[in-house]
Amino acid sequence: MWMHELTGRGKGPLYMELYWMLRRDMECGDIRPGERLPSKRELSARLGISVTTVEAAYGQLLAEGYLTARPGSGHYAAKVEYPAPAAQAEPELHERTPAGEQRPGESWLMDLASGTPRAELFPFPVLSRILRRMLSERGERLLQATDHSGAMELRQAIAHSLEEMRGIKVSPRQIVVGAGAEYLYGLIVQLLGRDKIYALEDPGYYKTALIYRKNGVACEYVEVDEKGMSVTGLRQSRARVAHVSPSHQFPGGGTMPFPRRTELLAWAMERPDRYLIEDDYDSEFRFSGRPVPALQSIDAEGRVIYVNTFSKTVAPALRIGYMALPQALLERFERELGFYACTVPATEQYMLSEFIQSGQFQRHVNRVRTYCRGVRDELVKAIEKSQMGPSCEILAKEAGLHFLLRFHTNLSDYEIRERAAEAGIRLLMVSDCRRGANGKGWDRTAVMSYAGIDPAQISEAVERLAASLHDG
Amino acid sequence: MWMHELTGRGKGPLYMELYWMLRRDMECGDIRPGERLPSKRELSARLGISVTTVEAAYGQLLAEGYLTARPGSGHYAAKVEYPAPAAQAEPELHERTPAGEQRPGESWLMDLASGTPRAELFPFPVLSRILRRMLSERGERLLQATDHSGAMELRQAIAHSLEEMRGIKVSPRQIVVGAGAEYLYGLIVQLLGRDKIYALEDPGYYKTALIYRKNGVACEYVEVDEKGMSVTGLRQSRARVAHVSPSHQFPGGGTMPFPRRTELLAWAMERPDRYLIEDDYDSEFRFSGRPVPALQSIDAEGRVIYVNTFSKTVAPALRIGYMALPQALLERFERELGFYACTVPATEQYMLSEFIQSGQFQRHVNRVRTYCRGVRDELVKAIEKSQMGPSCEILAKEAGLHFLLRFHTNLSDYEIRERAAEAGIRLLMVSDCRRGANGKGWDRTAVMSYAGIDPAQISEAVERLAASLHDG
Repeated sequence: MWMHELTGRGKGPLYMELYWMLRRDMECGDIRPGERLPSKRELSARLGISVTTVEAAYGQLLAEGYLTARPGSGHYAAKVEYPAPAAQAEPELHERTPAGEQRPGESWLMDLASGTPRAELFPFPVLSRILRRMLSERGERLLQATDHSGAMELRQAIAHSLEEMRGIKVSPRQIVVGAGAEYLYGLIVQLLGRDKIYALEDPGYYKTALIYRKNGVACEYVEVDEKGMSVTGLRQSRARVAHVSPSHQFPGGGTMPFPRRTELLAWAMERPDRYLIEDDYDSEFRFSGRPVPALQSIDAEGRVIYVNTFSKTVAPALRIGYMALPQALLERFERELGFYACTVPATEQYMLSEFIQSGQFQRHVNRVRTYCRGVRDELVKAIEKSQMGPSCEILAKEAGLHFLLRFHTNLSDYEIRERAAEAGIRLLMVSDCRRGANGKGWDRTAVMSYAGIDPAQISEAVERLAASLHDG
Repeated sequence: MWMHELTGRGKGPLYMELYWMLRRDMECGDIRPGERLPSKRELSARLGISVTTVEAAYGQLLAEGYLTARPGSGHYAAKVEYPAPAAQAEPELHERTPAGEQRPGESWLMDLASGTPRAELFPFPVLSRILRRMLSERGERLLQATDHSGAMELRQAIAHSLEEMRGIKVSPRQIVVGAGAEYLYGLIVQLLGRDKIYALEDPGYYKTALIYRKNGVACEYVEVDEKGMSVTGLRQSRARVAHVSPSHQFPGGGTMPFPRRTELLAWAMERPDRYLIEDDYDSEFRFSGRPVPALQSIDAEGRVIYVNTFSKTVAPALRIGYMALPQALLERFERELGFYACTVPATEQYMLSEFIQSGQFQRHVNRVRTYCRGVRDELVKAIEKSQMGPSCEILAKEAGLHFLLRFHTNLSDYEIRERAAEAGIRLLMVSDCRRGANGKGWDRTAVMSYAGIDPAQISEAVERLAASLHDG
């Protein structure tokens, strides 16, 4: 079963650290439903902690229904269905749904937990035109495999656009194209190895932790403040690799200021086997202030792997992500992982490459940004004008496709989410994104992902939400 | 470094088992170029074998250039470029190559080591027609994400075609679509776990071993005879999962007869944690005899994961593979890995789905099969009529896109390959596909992958090959 150690460095009590460790293991299936847990005595011996600490953690898990106790037989993981990750989940297509039809937020008046942009925003007419032309002009070459790292023309287009939009200078050879960021993280684990600990942001994006763990990597969760991952926390961890999103942390919403970026890089440079994975997933959506340079662009020693995707900026069904590898890792990648075929169909690669090269990608991003700013402004205004206006606070709204809404209320996070749900509003709370014993100071705060909502529903939805929370 | 144990169960001497273990570790990068190896004494102590055995293995590796010795300092892994996997490698697109143009077999008169079918065989006109119609009829729904296991209409089409073509009865829900078989193997490792040993065929497909190892799995290599993986060998291993290709073993070419299939299944059923991965990669290309039922179709207890791909049957750039999961694993898959987004773009999924449902996929496969049989017959006839006809033998030509050519010669495998290369013919030898100390009885045998060759070159190529081997 689990071989973790407790660090004893979380801010909360030790039993809560154990609580989170066990809960995470159940949520990601490392402890299976119905599995018997070690006895309190056994676990206390194994982890070198007191029986009282184990008792407190088991008690909390029992109270919350994660465990069941059978008298004389011990504790068992509950046979529960863990809720699907709410944060930015792909909408599901059910068997009964007509082909190709998805129903994001089905049955919700407003789904503020899904970050998928509205279908109306997809640049379908342009992409369709490019595709038709390609079918005539390129013919069966569209069915020939590309280079294992992606078609060179797409990698050139990406490298060029990275320089223009993010100040990142890389050769097209350093770009590796793959079927989405999720796939690329798995590839990065194969490249950097499973024999080291990876630091993840806490609170952080639900899927990131699952992906690393399912790829066999031990993770430590490092506290995030309004400036992003705490470098002090990182230094206290045993991590050799840190996964960070400096442009726009999810869900905290912070943008990492320059001094902390250099601190992070300094951490990486202290040992030859330290690396940073820069998750730049929605850097394109910055609404005001100076664009912040990518970590990769100030990395002089080749310690940053930059990862981004077109799922947000173009369409979720276009499964194309890419990473920019530092020169030194590129050689290792070619030698050890160069045997993999590219996971993206050639047609999609050429289509995207023309979309970028023609300047239409940039124009599309600008259009979506303007649209999203409009939706955000409307939503913010509606909240401020509503009944709940005086008793809530809007945070971190200058970047990315979500902002934070903090409620000044006596309701718990659980109650807020449940009451909102009853009113037809799907909310994700920052506390839902907690992974470790950290994450204090984020209570009663909702992650408002607005890219997919219907602006016509805003006033009704906000009114209903305000009413549902009124007497809290 | 490495933590393998020698099994001492290979057919050859123990030092050759050590030789292969070290060579594999170097080839897949577990031992890095320039890395210092343990001293003979140290390694002998660590593995519990005699210093003489280590000496003999180091000696062989030194002689072949895998190691270099520095007097007084020890042995180092050579800084060599390991040849790219020749077997069925995707053709590379070089930076200098015009966009979209690949050059399979560039500079070779004939490339018999690459299994990629000729571009002329791709069903481009049909696919292009389907795609154009979809762009008009489906519009922006093409840019919406599908279910995480793939679009239901594609999974229905695959399930239906599996029943018709392979006698496999599964619900569409059991089908998981992903960006190629390579990606799916990684997903299977995440599903079945890294804490068990996987048995691989020896000799076997180069990439399969690399994929499992890079996914952090310990592998044992089990001997293959003309009937496929030896169940006796499998029983002597510590494996819990076996990856087999019963329809058509690569490179051995054998089709596993029914009795051995049931033996394999019996092995799997003896323990609840044993599974078989059925790699059915080119089952569509059987030229004569009764079609052999898939392992999956005779599996009553849900121990077989069936994997296939459309890279061979449609086109290599269409990165679509799929697996059929047994019911019990399906639940685990949904619970533990259901958070992953599908890696195949929606457009490709719908296109392929229409291609299958309209019956055009089946017609296309029939056409390619007829074409390939014609090429095979021509190549076989040319070989038999040539100067080398009397001194060689053709084996395993009734299934799949390669056959074996055994030379009765005094030349070594190395010499055969080098002489052929000088004559402009790229050959892959069965011995190139060996992974462990097994694989005896496969000497002087070339793997003739003919799907990608130009029939117009056959007579010249065979003549040159025969001449180059003449005085051997």
